Amino acid sequence: MVNKKIKKILVANRGEIALRIMRTAREMGIRAVAVYSEADRKSPHVRFADEAVFLGPSPSSQSYLNGKKIVDYALKLKVDGIHPGYGFLSENSEFAQLVEDAGLIFIGPSSKSIQIMGDKLSAKKAVSQYKIPMIPGTDVAITDLQEAKNTAKKIGYPILIKASAGGGGKGMRVVEKEGDLENQLQRAISEAKSAFGNPAVFLEKYISSPRHIEIQILGDQQGHMVYLFERECSIQRRHQKVIEEAPSPVVSEKMRKEMGVAAIKVAKSCHYHGAGTVEFIVDEELNFYFLEMNTRLQVEHPVTEMITGKDLVKYQILIAEGRSLDFGQEDLTINGHAIEVRVYAEDPQNNFLPDIGKLRTYKRPQGPGVRVDDGFEEGLEIPIHYDPMIAKLVVHDENREKAIQRMIRAVQEYQIAGLETTLSFARFVMEHPCFQNGNFNTKFIELHFRPKKLKSNFDKNEQEVLAAIGVHFYRKHHSSNSGISEENNISLWKKRLKDG
Amino acid sequence: MVNKKIKKILVANRGEIALRIMRTAREMGIRAVAVYSEADRKSPHVRFADEAVFLGPSPSSQSYLNGKKIVDYALKLKVDGIHPGYGFLSENSEFAQLVEDAGLIFIGPSSKSIQIMGDKLSAKKAVSQYKIPMIPGTDVAITDLQEAKNTAKKIGYPILIKASAGGGGKGMRVVEKEGDLENQLQRAISEAKSAFGNPAVFLEKYISSPRHIEIQILGDQQGHMVYLFERECSIQRRHQKVIEEAPSPVVSEKMRKEMGVAAIKVAKSCHYHGAGTVEFIVDEELNFYFLEMNTRLQVEHPVTEMITGKDLVKYQILIAEGRSLDFGQEDLTINGHAIEVRVYAEDPQNNFLPDIGKLRTYKRPQGPGVRVDDGFEEGLEIPIHYDPMIAKLVVHDENREKAIQRMIRAVQEYQIAGLETTLSFARFVMEHPCFQNGNFNTKFIELHFRPKKLKSNFDKNEQEVLAAIGVHFYRKHHSSNSGISEENNISLWKKRLKDG
Repeated sequence: MVNKKIKKILVANRGEIALRIMRTAREMGIRAVAVYSEADRKSPHVRFADEAVFLGPSPSSQSYLNGKKIVDYALKLKVDGIHPGYGFLSENSEFAQLVEDAGLIFIGPSSKSIQIMGDKLSAKKAVSQYKIPMIPGTDVAITDLQEAKNTAKKIGYPILIKASAGGGGKGMRVVEKEGDLENQLQRAISEAKSAFGNPAVFLEKYISSPRHIEIQILGDQQGHMVYLFERECSIQRRHQKVIEEAPSPVVSEKMRKEMGVAAIKVAKSCHYHGAGTVEFIVDEELNFYFLEMNTRLQVEHPVTEMITGKDLVKYQILIAEGRSLDFGQEDLTINGHAIEVRVYAEDPQNNFLPDIGKLRTYKRPQGPGVRVDDGFEEGLEIPIHYDPMIAKLVVHDENREKAIQRMIRAVQEYQIAGLETTLSFARFVMEHPCFQNGNFNTKFIELHFRPKKLKSNFDKNEQEVLAAIGVHFYRKHHSSNSGISEENNISLWKKRLKDG
Repeated sequence: MVNKKIKKILVANRGEIALRIMRTAREMGIRAVAVYSEADRKSPHVRFADEAVFLGPSPSSQSYLNGKKIVDYALKLKVDGIHPGYGFLSENSEFAQLVEDAGLIFIGPSSKSIQIMGDKLSAKKAVSQYKIPMIPGTDVAITDLQEAKNTAKKIGYPILIKASAGGGGKGMRVVEKEGDLENQLQRAISEAKSAFGNPAVFLEKYISSPRHIEIQILGDQQGHMVYLFERECSIQRRHQKVIEEAPSPVVSEKMRKEMGVAAIKVAKSCHYHGAGTVEFIVDEELNFYFLEMNTRLQVEHPVTEMITGKDLVKYQILIAEGRSLDFGQEDLTINGHAIEVRVYAEDPQNNFLPDIGKLRTYKRPQGPGVRVDDGFEEGLEIPIHYDPMIAKLVVHDENREKAIQRMIRAVQEYQIAGLETTLSFARFVMEHPCFQNGNFNTKFIELHFRPKKLKSNFDKNEQEVLAAIGVHFYRKHHSSNSGISEENNISLWKKRLKDG
């Protein structure tokens, strides 16, 4: 691999991640080209860029997913490389191939690595020789009851029966003890047959209260590879992460090293280079099992940046240029604790349904240890065409306890009006004893979330505005000289408002 | 000292530092009372507070400097402690005494420590037994030529003759070699006589190209004390710091330790507790000499917070409560590099004269490693009554080189319109080879600053606004379908604007 200095990139994405990437590009003296759809004409990522290209109508299929058009513009604008961000074309091996074939640098892994890890079967095959911990189970279809009993005993109850051709939970049955196996197996087989026309079922260990913990890795094209520790991503709604942190409150030094080594093996199995994430499922006894590898930058990468001090996008670009990593595993240490809250335009009181609209008020929190990555400004609309994430609110402090307090402060300080957001949910989580003591898993919302207990940030802000108006009129009718009659006036109005 | 939990504080300050302190208070579960003058009625620090008290007219003497009134309100509102911030009453020992006498906690050192360090003579006396490096010179008035020659030889040329009663540079003469001493001494004596009615002069080593480097310390009431490394503060205008960084590019491990130990001795000499800063003058051979101790939080404290991970305000409050430091010197390490730029409403093209006005546009930079501490919002006026600092722009990265690049990016991203600011000056400094290679001192502006070389951020923003308008009209007259005719349009307009 010959070093090629990247002087200009095209960012094939939108919003916060496009801005995030362009900020680093600018720090590296690299010019950045933005792309945008109809809905994103006024988006800050377009204004931030050195050049901007209009892609087409708002639906992704006609804009951000049009790989051919993006590569054509990249060639016309003489860019050296394309950064795909996350989502959209970032894990599309055909797009990576298209970029490579055009003689451009794809700022990410090779199309081959994406392809291997993009398919569960090929990924499993690739890692098979590396002794990566996998969820215990059968590789071939089970038909015989005695065989099933023997296997289940080996795996240990509870077990999960899964249809080979299944998906969406169909043909899946949890078996708690041997006595239930025969009955459940027959039901699963007949369900699989009728639902998929294929009676084949497998057995797998059932992890009832899983945690989702992932390892960030960086690898260069010379084969050096490091892990940048873990991210705890167990707080999810609709199987999508909403709150992430690093490090995890349950991972010990020993487990961290074991997971890191396993993650590097997974990455090596597909000759990975660039930034990547190896996801693991962790059971209640803290055994971890390989789930999948994400061959791109993750949404939640900032928490890793905050505890390691490494700019992951910078390293993505340096690696894409063919440079060797300038640090080793021994140079990495965990510095403090970081938490990310994804601020969605969703109503947590209404099953997290999107609440699209205009950011009537939009004031970000500031101060020590607070980072807000977003792609919007006051007055802009959150478009219906894309993921309704408004911002990523990230905090860093000396330890987890202080980071939680900092997050609560930042959530309180964030002023968003015009639509509902998940900020009140974030505060609920931060204040919940199970989150605070680290005792939670992917079922947190199901088990603990009570929408009625939310404290709305929105109400608080409205109250403050009303209080300010109150003070204004109060002053008009009183001497504005100093004196005890005027003291404490805002708190007085706030109190009056609270009392109704 | 009995521990007393602080539940409510009054912040006897305004703007960014009031907000900064209240953010930490909120993270600690402490309620905060703001005070404000007429000019600051709409200030964000008032809105942020849990309660706010109107102090009086805008001039500081009638509001933020009215210690009696502030203590009265603190008592009426039942606060436990008063945080003075920096400036105003922060180094006023009588105010600290007033607070102590009222039975309230002064969040800072004792009034006695403030008093000792507030006076050059008593400070010198206090540290005299601690063998702190002082600028070599005479302690008593010089009248005899031979005595002067002997002393000057001991000190080493160049030396500075200083009038004992002097100030403002009057009666000061630099002597480069022994042959000039007689003549200069006579002139200085007669000058001192005519200007101050007192012919007494002293000799002191003349440090022609001084650096200003200071050490942050923290000490608890039990006598434990640590140093949180140095801040390089040599970039100054009008003898006031404008750009600070940590660590200093010239301080070695050995020198850092020596300075740290010296700083702790200075602090111990006045039985200091709380956060304090010991300032040193450093000559070209990197000898350091004690200058003074600032008995308060410094404006530039965020760079120390960024490289140590310690929230200095949090420790100020904990120490004021009587708690012991929960870490020792051995727990402290330097993590990366941080730079602070003070963004003033001043015109660097016009001798840094204040350029007061309204923040017509005000958009802060964001992204990894960027912190903005400010006390304003878009649409607010910068009042003429106080220091015209708009914000502190602070960046952090892995090393100094990367931090400089990050600062340049952040400066470019900062959008302020409506008045001139020192942002363009900050960029000039960041891009100057002498700053980049660490080869600078307090004469940087005098030696290197050429206002004509400024790249105005303001112009750039104006250009972008015009470009956006251009794009708008362009689109009105062209099909808004995608296609190469529309590509690259903003950069096209920017180019057209640049070409005139």
